[in-house]
Amino acid sequence: MFDIRDQMMRKSPDKMLEQLKNFHLDLKFSVGIWYFSPSGSRFKEAASAPKSIEERLDIIASLKDYGVSALEAHYPNEINEDNMDLYKKFSRDTGIRILTVIPNLFFQKQWEFSSLASPIEEVRQKAIERLKISLQLNKELDTDFAIIWHGGDGYENPFGIDFMAMRDRFAYGIAEAMDQVPGVRVAIEPKPYEPRGRIIYGTTAEGILVAQKVEGALRNEENRRILSEGHSLVGLNPEVGHVLMAYEDLPYAFSLAMEYGKLMHTHWNSQPLGNYDQDLNVGVVSPEQAEAALYVLKMHGYKGYFGIDINPERMPVDVAVKNNIDALRSMNARIEELDHEAILEAVNKPDQHRGLLEAILIRARAPKTISLPPISSVVKK
Amino acid sequence: MFDIRDQMMRKSPDKMLEQLKNFHLDLKFSVGIWYFSPSGSRFKEAASAPKSIEERLDIIASLKDYGVSALEAHYPNEINEDNMDLYKKFSRDTGIRILTVIPNLFFQKQWEFSSLASPIEEVRQKAIERLKISLQLNKELDTDFAIIWHGGDGYENPFGIDFMAMRDRFAYGIAEAMDQVPGVRVAIEPKPYEPRGRIIYGTTAEGILVAQKVEGALRNEENRRILSEGHSLVGLNPEVGHVLMAYEDLPYAFSLAMEYGKLMHTHWNSQPLGNYDQDLNVGVVSPEQAEAALYVLKMHGYKGYFGIDINPERMPVDVAVKNNIDALRSMNARIEELDHEAILEAVNKPDQHRGLLEAILIRARAPKTISLPPISSVVKK
Amino acid sequence: MFDIRDQMMRKSPDKMLEQLKNFHLDLKFSVGIWYFSPSGSRFKEAASAPKSIEERLDIIASLKDYGVSALEAHYPNEINEDNMDLYKKFSRDTGIRILTVIPNLFFQKQWEFSSLASPIEEVRQKAIERLKISLQLNKELDTDFAIIWHGGDGYENPFGIDFMAMRDRFAYGIAEAMDQVPGVRVAIEPKPYEPRGRIIYGTTAEGILVAQKVEGALRNEENRRILSEGHSLVGLNPEVGHVLMAYEDLPYAFSLAMEYGKLMHTHWNSQPLGNYDQDLNVGVVSPEQAEAALYVLKMHGYKGYFGIDINPERMPVDVAVKNNIDALRSMNARIEELDHEAILEAVNKPDQHRGLLEAILIRARAPKTISLPPISSVVKK
Amino acid sequence: MFDIRDQMMRKSPDKMLEQLKNFHLDLKFSVGIWYFSPSGSRFKEAASAPKSIEERLDIIASLKDYGVSALEAHYPNEINEDNMDLYKKFSRDTGIRILTVIPNLFFQKQWEFSSLASPIEEVRQKAIERLKISLQLNKELDTDFAIIWHGGDGYENPFGIDFMAMRDRFAYGIAEAMDQVPGVRVAIEPKPYEPRGRIIYGTTAEGILVAQKVEGALRNEENRRILSEGHSLVGLNPEVGHVLMAYEDLPYAFSLAMEYGKLMHTHWNSQPLGNYDQDLNVGVVSPEQAEAALYVLKMHGYKGYFGIDINPERMPVDVAVKNNIDALRSMNARIEELDHEAILEAVNKPDQHRGLLEAILIRARAPKTISLPPISSVVKK
Repeated sequence: MFDIRDQMMRKSPDKMLEQLKNFHLDLKFSVGIWYFSPSGSRFKEAASAPKSIEERLDIIASLKDYGVSALEAHYPNEINEDNMDLYKKFSRDTGIRILTVIPNLFFQKQWEFSSLASPIEEVRQKAIERLKISLQLNKELDTDFAIIWHGGDGYENPFGIDFMAMRDRFAYGIAEAMDQVPGVRVAIEPKPYEPRGRIIYGTTAEGILVAQKVEGALRNEENRRILSEGHSLVGLNPEVGHVLMAYEDLPYAFSLAMEYGKLMHTHWNSQPLGNYDQDLNVGVVSPEQAEAALYVLKMHGYKGYFGIDINPERMPVDVAVKNNIDALRSMNARIEELDHEAILEAVNKPDQHRGLLEAILIRARAPKTISLPPISSVVKK
Repeated sequence: MFDIRDQMMRKSPDKMLEQLKNFHLDLKFSVGIWYFSPSGSRFKEAASAPKSIEERLDIIASLKDYGVSALEAHYPNEINEDNMDLYKKFSRDTGIRILTVIPNLFFQKQWEFSSLASPIEEVRQKAIERLKISLQLNKELDTDFAIIWHGGDGYENPFGIDFMAMRDRFAYGIAEAMDQVPGVRVAIEPKPYEPRGRIIYGTTAEGILVAQKVEGALRNEENRRILSEGHSLVGLNPEVGHVLMAYEDLPYAFSLAMEYGKLMHTHWNSQPLGNYDQDLNVGVVSPEQAEAALYVLKMHGYKGYFGIDINPERMPVDVAVKNNIDALRSMNARIEELDHEAILEAVNKPDQHRGLLEAILIRARAPKTISLPPISSVVKK
Repeated sequence: MFDIRDQMMRKSPDKMLEQLKNFHLDLKFSVGIWYFSPSGSRFKEAASAPKSIEERLDIIASLKDYGVSALEAHYPNEINEDNMDLYKKFSRDTGIRILTVIPNLFFQKQWEFSSLASPIEEVRQKAIERLKISLQLNKELDTDFAIIWHGGDGYENPFGIDFMAMRDRFAYGIAEAMDQVPGVRVAIEPKPYEPRGRIIYGTTAEGILVAQKVEGALRNEENRRILSEGHSLVGLNPEVGHVLMAYEDLPYAFSLAMEYGKLMHTHWNSQPLGNYDQDLNVGVVSPEQAEAALYVLKMHGYKGYFGIDINPERMPVDVAVKNNIDALRSMNARIEELDHEAILEAVNKPDQHRGLLEAILIRARAPKTISLPPISSVVKK
Repeated sequence: MFDIRDQMMRKSPDKMLEQLKNFHLDLKFSVGIWYFSPSGSRFKEAASAPKSIEERLDIIASLKDYGVSALEAHYPNEINEDNMDLYKKFSRDTGIRILTVIPNLFFQKQWEFSSLASPIEEVRQKAIERLKISLQLNKELDTDFAIIWHGGDGYENPFGIDFMAMRDRFAYGIAEAMDQVPGVRVAIEPKPYEPRGRIIYGTTAEGILVAQKVEGALRNEENRRILSEGHSLVGLNPEVGHVLMAYEDLPYAFSLAMEYGKLMHTHWNSQPLGNYDQDLNVGVVSPEQAEAALYVLKMHGYKGYFGIDINPERMPVDVAVKNNIDALRSMNARIEELDHEAILEAVNKPDQHRGLLEAILIRARAPKTISLPPISSVVKK
């Protein structure tokens, strides 16, 4: 089990400066097999016929040299008992790991009134069972965690719903499955809406609340032991677009998950605030959010993967993945070259350095063809 | 051609009071055949197999007695040259009119980089041709107008786009088709986003701008004659959810279209601000917006249909249609019973009647089981 | 100390039905003295000269008979060591309680870079001291809790901020003050933004997280004892407008606070999603959210006050308060008359009662001048 | 009168390439005197005492060398009949022009129920008179236009309002004043909300509609002559933050105003979507919107000023102005160095260059410390 407890470590300004100078993000990229086959929407047909799993794995393999080192897939529609060997062979051949097996709890009609949170007990049991099998596959494949994206667990009209019971069903359903397959981590991926009008536990903070709730309900001895050592068993996989759909601030959201030792994974793309779930490539919208988020990850020592979670509707998926990798590498290069000491001064003594932070960032983002006046001509000492 | 020029008529407060007392909205309901077959989305499969056109028409026929009197369909996927007779027979048998034939310019992959606004000339010509045929079908069926919902005409990344050229292609493409099938009206349905990240001409005001632009480009004599008589040939079909996705105020939006004599039709549902396009039933979200909008329609003499435009994902479509009809009838009953004189006083002399409007509306919305203090105990004379 | 632990109690559907039949919300109204004097904004001057505290108390006294039974005030600008006797006398004379003394941690320039969360230690100590004195005043006046609204604790540019340290400073600052004045409860009022671009702990879920964090840091024996009995010492005061500015669902937000036994108070007004903080009267926007929220309070046995938190810019404050009281009483009357059994059936067996919930609510909201078809003609058994 | 008719000129792709190669934005900066004195808000006091006009002009003069070449002021609170000479002398001494005199139609209580759109005729006449005097001052000072920002013209509760009459009062009030002071241009600055819950004519497209409406109502001969020559007399001054509060796309909005030959001025800052009006410095939020907007200005030959419209709450105003100037110069340098031919190829033949636009922009934004793979390794020919 990879250790993420040091995310919680508090740092004095001096220690933080050391951290910024000495810790460098390791940009390990993971991809999701789902978007290697075109997807349609309510208003737009898929761009082409579905691609087989084999075809998709071939494209992914071809991206190895560009930096892809891990893979994510849903159970049972993408990975399952029958095609496990295909994935294992793929991993052996390419060195690309299976990072997570994700139970698909949203697509089928059976989940129309929620899955783990369903008030229909029969449906809920099916969801728990599906989660359980997914956890087993994660164990068998020695993945890092099972993501749970519970897009179908929600409502449109809130009137009369016993939300407390609904949330209990969801959290205790996860706990039940986890206790049957102990030692497997879960990374919850909140989203505020779509496909449901409202999805429960839809923000980063709500994700932490449900993670705590599930952990508090675990009874299996192995699980209890892991928790007692300070590890999280339930953490988060914040998806950039989802975070912004909820009007959260990305660096703040990442840091909140880390404060609780729960930032297990990150899913990257870009998205305007609100809107529908666009899954645009990194940097297309609000690159400043992504850069500030990378800096937070650097500050608190994130060692996980950078999962690319996109919906490349108008470009070949391999082109899209490369653009995302390039965008993140470029952003990371920029934050690496900053004068961290000056940044910390500006942020920690804001009354003494009014305007300095912006002046630094403007220069860091300026193209090489322009020579801006020295900072001393802008900000007084 | 039904005459909507009187929408533009300005009324003095006295005339407005007369209007409110004497003009009563005629709640004629229209339905869209598309939602009589279940639709899936990117994250949720369709609730059941597609229904045939015949099956859908049967359900629609069964709603005649509840109040459905008109029907809307897309060309060519729902109505086309081959099944026209089916629709004609349906109309004859049931008395339910075909209100509009809508060119489908969004669903197919060919429109991935826009339809009428496409920079790829070959694609744009196909879109113009499809619009032209749709206009012909509208003529043949003696409908009221062709709706154009241009959901695919937009972009995700705005960088470098010549938007002026893009909007020209769109507007002049419509004009070209209209001049080939003169005398057929077009009702544009703006939407700010989804399926595109951004859709051009996405708000009510932008809809008016493009309507003016198209009308200004019409050259056919019959079309010029109609315009010269003060009629609109291009108007709007505001869809409640789209208007709210754009953070517009619904009554204001309706009144803006009417100011230009361009409110040809209305599409009803409910929707939170922003968000994805939920197409919830009327009244589920923000009923106060719907009521204020109905009042504006009453003030300015709307005589068009009330198109129900929903996506009933978790209830039978006939149940959903009935709920929408009941909700609108209930809202209309409420605005009919208001003291219009007091409302106009409150609105036109706001400095003399501070708080009065709210006091009136609170009482109009109160259930019969409560007796609130008289308004005179709240608002001073 | 009033006991709110039973908010956490889970109820079977049968118990819930009992609750809905037998528990009736007690609409005790509280007002905030701040809005009894006109306030200006950046773009609009105050409607008149400031009113003295005495003048404000006179107006509040005049609202006693209409239903106002409690009062809220900020320290030190509204209530302080010097005018305490004025408030005490007011309470004795009118029977209107002082419900809470709120430390003003946002208005003065000294808090420009945050108050309790300030990186400037001297400023932070002043904030802790102000909070401490406020807690003492709350104790002396035997209020129910001290509200903390930390509108100034935030940032505009997230780059480079050690959010973990920032949140620690905030939470541990509260704990420090609370341990010096043990036994006094704190109700945190989250807000996502305004006046800061971003405010930390800005949503209901984040409010719960910080409440837990503060409670976990309390060391004083009396405080520890209270916590050990299952009481919350730090809870929430969700403000309707703030909740909606954060795009939260109001009934869900209330229920989340109650799940943790932390719904100490509620602040009522109305507000569109997003936008700036309008503090409109209850019911002006989205009455359906308020009604669903009242129902949730009824379901989980809320016994606190209904604080009216408005900004009556264009009507006399007494008129505004009355309109709010009437609106809430009307909404409560509506939810009281519902067929709770049918509601629970509809919500708990959604697959068996598709469309029923809406059909019920449409009828509950219909004016008495309309007679809608019976539900049996809409929803199949 | 400066000629902006060529904004409307359509360009073939070849002409556009020429334009991009040969036309370079002239970054002339203008500042608003209002933010050179600290402003408070409802929740935060002003950072210091108000500064006199003289003090403000001194600071502005000191920014001349950094690039400030024009000044904007409100009538009568900042510039008026009594202090005109001060401004004239300032202009003569510094060479900094008075770019516009803006009637203040929002701050005073008298405008509480709107100004030009007020239903109270006496109030409306005062607003027209104030506008008229402002136009005269603009004439006397030989400014480029009078900005009208009508922040107080709106409503909170839409129920029962005759919006058509309201908009007429607004538009025809402007026309009345303009016909009394012919030859003076007006640049309308739309904003969707704040301080009103809703402001009429709140988006770019609505701004164009009202501009057309006013122009259509002008009767003075000189005004008619100017219009007959194809000039706009009423145009727009889009303010970046306002445009984004309305969820508009900035480059699209700018291009829309230019399509009508109406982009008279631009007000720059940065702002998240929705939210309250933050007036943050350029580049703090969504720099990609600003860059794409600059590119659109370059494409369509914008020759106006770049007005910096900020609210520097936590840094000295001169530091803030310098940061904004540096940010805009940096962004402009980046768009100048782009391979325009490749950009146009990518945008105009999207089906042949999938992913190319992003690949170009990623490289243009990359810091010099990183060397990304050549585009040919990402995008297939």
